[in-house]
Amino acid sequence: MPTVAVIPKPNSPVELREVPPPELEQNSALLEVEFSEVCGTDVYLHRGLLTGVPYPLVPGHVSVGRLDRIRGELLDVNGQRFREGDRITFLDVHRTCNACWYCLVAKATTRCPHRKVYGITYGLDDGLCGGWATHVYLKPGTRCIHIDSDPETFMAGGCALPTALHAIERGEIRIGDTVLILGSGPVGINAILLARMSGALRVLCIGAPQSRLDAALQAGASKVLNIETHDVEARRDWVMEQTSGRGADVTIEVTGVAEAVVQAMRFTRDAGRVVIVGQYTDHGPVEFNPHSDLNRKHLDVRGCWGSDFSHFYRGVEIVSDETRAQPWSEMSLTKFGLKDANEALSEVASGAVLKALVDPKL
Amino acid sequence: MPTVAVIPKPNSPVELREVPPPELEQNSALLEVEFSEVCGTDVYLHRGLLTGVPYPLVPGHVSVGRLDRIRGELLDVNGQRFREGDRITFLDVHRTCNACWYCLVAKATTRCPHRKVYGITYGLDDGLCGGWATHVYLKPGTRCIHIDSDPETFMAGGCALPTALHAIERGEIRIGDTVLILGSGPVGINAILLARMSGALRVLCIGAPQSRLDAALQAGASKVLNIETHDVEARRDWVMEQTSGRGADVTIEVTGVAEAVVQAMRFTRDAGRVVIVGQYTDHGPVEFNPHSDLNRKHLDVRGCWGSDFSHFYRGVEIVSDETRAQPWSEMSLTKFGLKDANEALSEVASGAVLKALVDPKL
Amino acid sequence: MPTVAVIPKPNSPVELREVPPPELEQNSALLEVEFSEVCGTDVYLHRGLLTGVPYPLVPGHVSVGRLDRIRGELLDVNGQRFREGDRITFLDVHRTCNACWYCLVAKATTRCPHRKVYGITYGLDDGLCGGWATHVYLKPGTRCIHIDSDPETFMAGGCALPTALHAIERGEIRIGDTVLILGSGPVGINAILLARMSGALRVLCIGAPQSRLDAALQAGASKVLNIETHDVEARRDWVMEQTSGRGADVTIEVTGVAEAVVQAMRFTRDAGRVVIVGQYTDHGPVEFNPHSDLNRKHLDVRGCWGSDFSHFYRGVEIVSDETRAQPWSEMSLTKFGLKDANEALSEVASGAVLKALVDPKL
Amino acid sequence: MPTVAVIPKPNSPVELREVPPPELEQNSALLEVEFSEVCGTDVYLHRGLLTGVPYPLVPGHVSVGRLDRIRGELLDVNGQRFREGDRITFLDVHRTCNACWYCLVAKATTRCPHRKVYGITYGLDDGLCGGWATHVYLKPGTRCIHIDSDPETFMAGGCALPTALHAIERGEIRIGDTVLILGSGPVGINAILLARMSGALRVLCIGAPQSRLDAALQAGASKVLNIETHDVEARRDWVMEQTSGRGADVTIEVTGVAEAVVQAMRFTRDAGRVVIVGQYTDHGPVEFNPHSDLNRKHLDVRGCWGSDFSHFYRGVEIVSDETRAQPWSEMSLTKFGLKDANEALSEVASGAVLKALVDPKL
Repeated sequence: MPTVAVIPKPNSPVELREVPPPELEQNSALLEVEFSEVCGTDVYLHRGLLTGVPYPLVPGHVSVGRLDRIRGELLDVNGQRFREGDRITFLDVHRTCNACWYCLVAKATTRCPHRKVYGITYGLDDGLCGGWATHVYLKPGTRCIHIDSDPETFMAGGCALPTALHAIERGEIRIGDTVLILGSGPVGINAILLARMSGALRVLCIGAPQSRLDAALQAGASKVLNIETHDVEARRDWVMEQTSGRGADVTIEVTGVAEAVVQAMRFTRDAGRVVIVGQYTDHGPVEFNPHSDLNRKHLDVRGCWGSDFSHFYRGVEIVSDETRAQPWSEMSLTKFGLKDANEALSEVASGAVLKALVDPKL
Repeated sequence: MPTVAVIPKPNSPVELREVPPPELEQNSALLEVEFSEVCGTDVYLHRGLLTGVPYPLVPGHVSVGRLDRIRGELLDVNGQRFREGDRITFLDVHRTCNACWYCLVAKATTRCPHRKVYGITYGLDDGLCGGWATHVYLKPGTRCIHIDSDPETFMAGGCALPTALHAIERGEIRIGDTVLILGSGPVGINAILLARMSGALRVLCIGAPQSRLDAALQAGASKVLNIETHDVEARRDWVMEQTSGRGADVTIEVTGVAEAVVQAMRFTRDAGRVVIVGQYTDHGPVEFNPHSDLNRKHLDVRGCWGSDFSHFYRGVEIVSDETRAQPWSEMSLTKFGLKDANEALSEVASGAVLKALVDPKL
Repeated sequence: MPTVAVIPKPNSPVELREVPPPELEQNSALLEVEFSEVCGTDVYLHRGLLTGVPYPLVPGHVSVGRLDRIRGELLDVNGQRFREGDRITFLDVHRTCNACWYCLVAKATTRCPHRKVYGITYGLDDGLCGGWATHVYLKPGTRCIHIDSDPETFMAGGCALPTALHAIERGEIRIGDTVLILGSGPVGINAILLARMSGALRVLCIGAPQSRLDAALQAGASKVLNIETHDVEARRDWVMEQTSGRGADVTIEVTGVAEAVVQAMRFTRDAGRVVIVGQYTDHGPVEFNPHSDLNRKHLDVRGCWGSDFSHFYRGVEIVSDETRAQPWSEMSLTKFGLKDANEALSEVASGAVLKALVDPKL
Repeated sequence: MPTVAVIPKPNSPVELREVPPPELEQNSALLEVEFSEVCGTDVYLHRGLLTGVPYPLVPGHVSVGRLDRIRGELLDVNGQRFREGDRITFLDVHRTCNACWYCLVAKATTRCPHRKVYGITYGLDDGLCGGWATHVYLKPGTRCIHIDSDPETFMAGGCALPTALHAIERGEIRIGDTVLILGSGPVGINAILLARMSGALRVLCIGAPQSRLDAALQAGASKVLNIETHDVEARRDWVMEQTSGRGADVTIEVTGVAEAVVQAMRFTRDAGRVVIVGQYTDHGPVEFNPHSDLNRKHLDVRGCWGSDFSHFYRGVEIVSDETRAQPWSEMSLTKFGLKDANEALSEVASGAVLKALVDPKL
């Protein structure tokens, strides 16, 4: 019988439960999970900080595993059929409707009001819909991708890779740009890797703690600055020193701190671009000056919400490419069994581990 | 002897002075002024609210007149020589350097640190450099354009037309969009006209007083709302009612009020675009929520500073085109003599007149 | 019993047939046709010039009518349910799959290999899938839109309006541009209207016969030129005269003649944009000079295939808007009964009528 | 006395001449040449294949050297003064006017009719205006850049690097794209390096001879194909095999062969992008099918002419960056004295050397 790790309600410990195997609808499948991610969003989910979450919840939105059973037909984007036994991953976002005004007229599918997310807005009542489990039920219409690479390399990217890909796309980095990354968590590290991959000449990173800044350097940051030892003014001075006094061409904010949004604006050069991707949950208000921070700077400030299949697909391609995968293959992963999910959450929350995975075999 | 109207220092009354005629450098000219504009920026200049202004100052950055004398060669963008007696206008922005990093690498010429603006950052010590005068000295390298249209129709656009053109360009309006204009001063009215000209299906305007909202309707706004009788919540509700509950596709803020920047974000649909052009001077800080106002909305917020020759040139083309010029030809203009400049400033400051001109012949 | 007008095979006369009413699948509907369009594509379909067409074929891809029966639920893009008796139209493109590489990664849905088009790639064997009929079967997933405007005004736009909208979108017209339209058929006339609506200052049109050029002037073209009386060199000279010797900023080719593609390149200014939308069928090869026509000109040449829901939706919005609909409401329409479909085809082929409709009530 | 290598007229051997040192105008300088490039354009210049070239001509448009004498002030883009003895390079394009319609309204400065190019459209009668010389006269307004890197590494990029940078910019490569480079000369090799630097996952190259394809692999091409042993059909099949049958996302044509332009269109996926940069001189006409090659493919085909200061500046930054410069530092350079210029031309023409430099010290 499938086993899942459940958050019964906000701030309650994760519990194991056994769940009867699902009836497969036409063109659906059952996935046997190899790994599922434990990310910062899961910490927020555990604390009840996201709206619209139907507890009890099985977390785990990015996972990899093997197709245990398929009913009907499951096709990849090239129209090739998946077979039982294939190793795959799937886009956590489901039911982007392709029928509403946001999908069809605005073409802003990450704002489709009908989208559902495995492990976040699908709860236990919706079935086996989270990756912290021995099995996930892949409902009809779930977008699957073959994983030909090493599954741990794929998981090293996790949800941070498509998130960072979307942010980088919004940043429109040009060859030779100086890119500033505010934040040094998984999205920040991936953003550094992708900024370099997009032609940034120099990538600066401001974050903490030192272990993550070391990872940032490892990922290709030219220079890093520790927020624990440098106040806002010192950070600004540092950025200006690195950029002929102008500020970064592109700044990507991935911090989870409201004040960082305004710092991002102030650390960016006039007519530059700022991407805000670190405010997925409400970190409160912040004050800025529209004249000096925005209008006079002729600045572009771009919110970046979610990611779509194209980002997920390209992420898989990157970690599957032998000339590009290396940084992810070298990332440090810490694995936890289903029964150790509470420990995983606290290790991620404290920043003690860079990337935690649930391995249902443990 | 040329006569100029001078602001001796902030908050001092404008005075008339006589100034000896300039020696003409090679490839320069002397313009005999027909009209010069009195705009909101002049009110701010009089109050000393802009930085980097070298008082004593002759205001007047957009002017029209006839070439009195030319020394050497003065060419238009098509390489045609201007002749004495020609009616022309000139771009107030001078010395965009075409040699610095902002001009050549970032291609953000409105942020060139070397640009100088007639009537704003050129003061009386720089010569006859403002339009509130019988004559303006056109330094070498000043960009001039023939005015074949009625000069009053051109002046009706004034500096608001290129400013609005730049904002509209930043807004990337698509045919069928609903555009919201926050503010109903000259830039707002021009933005309404240009939003319609860009294919907006509906243009909404929120502003005051009623006389300007009437002008907004005249300019093509579908509906208007008076801020004097509707608080922020009522304004939001009104926008949502007009937009199937989504908000405007594009919002252009031209208010001069810091709070309006945040309202612009909140009144715009997810994945829409906001252009901030009403914060040319410092109206203080404002608080917003990066999560709900920006990141989750997947919003684009774009500062818009100054305008360049292309906007000025296209503005002249519009008011010179018989199929497009009509709204400007019908705008109400109030003329003041040089000696009445103080009265002109107070009428503009109070909003009693929509558009004031200095006519040195009066 | 529903009646349809059928092209049994290429170059055979259209015949009337009676067809049993369809079983309605869940979330499908039956439309009672008021009008369906006869356009140039139908002439090509009759001549067998398109590939992938499953004869016998019921033509008619853009139609308007009333919902006769609904089974299950039919929703608009705002999630509102349609009811029986509603007047609607529907996007002829069906089954854009939202599952393939073109839909999801390239986001080029008009190149989705799974798309099917009512009246073109759905044949009679697929059911009541063409508008030249008393009834059309709206399969599940068909995208419908309420028609609140006068249905004849909507039909005046027909398929030319979304086609032209897509082309105009590709042309990225800026306020003040000079736009050249090559061709004066329905797509050309719509492109003129939309170019003006997008801020083009001057719209030039080269086409034939004179009656269509008169319609072009009526639609807002500044000047027109008749190809029957002007050879290629004369046409080029004429364009250069109108454009200070530079060529048009944007040229939109809608001719159905291969040579026009090269003329479009030559009549456009350096660093301008050319949109090719008049080559939906194979008009043979043509010769050009990559050096002088493309590389040295720094030209953008953009093919434009099909249109998507956003174009169709915005087209409906335009003809439903009282401030924008007038040009379409004044267009000349010629109506034919189902039994007169052959005559309709020959009138369209000869250019004797500007826009022909099938009215099954006649 | 300065010595120059001169092409007296097309197809005449290069000769050495002594020229009196120039009078320095205010804000000009004299450069002592260390290296100047011998590129394919020089071969065309020698054969008289470019129009508007004022023979006798001193070739050499990209050069590096030390400032021998400065009169007045020479500033870099950050406003820093150059000093005598500094090692610099300069943008070969001079007198982009910043005053004409193309510079100011279209913002297409590479099409400015007033631009002059050292070594190409400045001839010997214009002074010491080519790099195949002991000295070059840097006229006022020449844009100079410090060379802090190894001068040979800079020269390895030469004019091919900014040309390729511009082409890559036009190609709008996204992370994960498959990029096809047609041509394996210096621009092709640089385009491969930059496509990888822009995030291309796979770069394919079709060219010849084998030695250059080896260089292509060295530069990061995933796979290469030799045109000497594969006809057009085989090349197409090969591209389709590498791209799931779709074609490349982006193709950059740098061949100097007219037929390659059409192959570029055919080897690119639907809705992809093609950049044409290999047709700087007239290689004659070519035939294509507007329906199948352009319109139905929904293709973007972009001519790319010249390069501007931003490309040159970013090129210098790349070869000066220790994390990016390596491929250029490893390129094979062959040096010739001024007196061996004819030999240099014939070696470049035959493809016997990848990159030839003139070293006036030899």
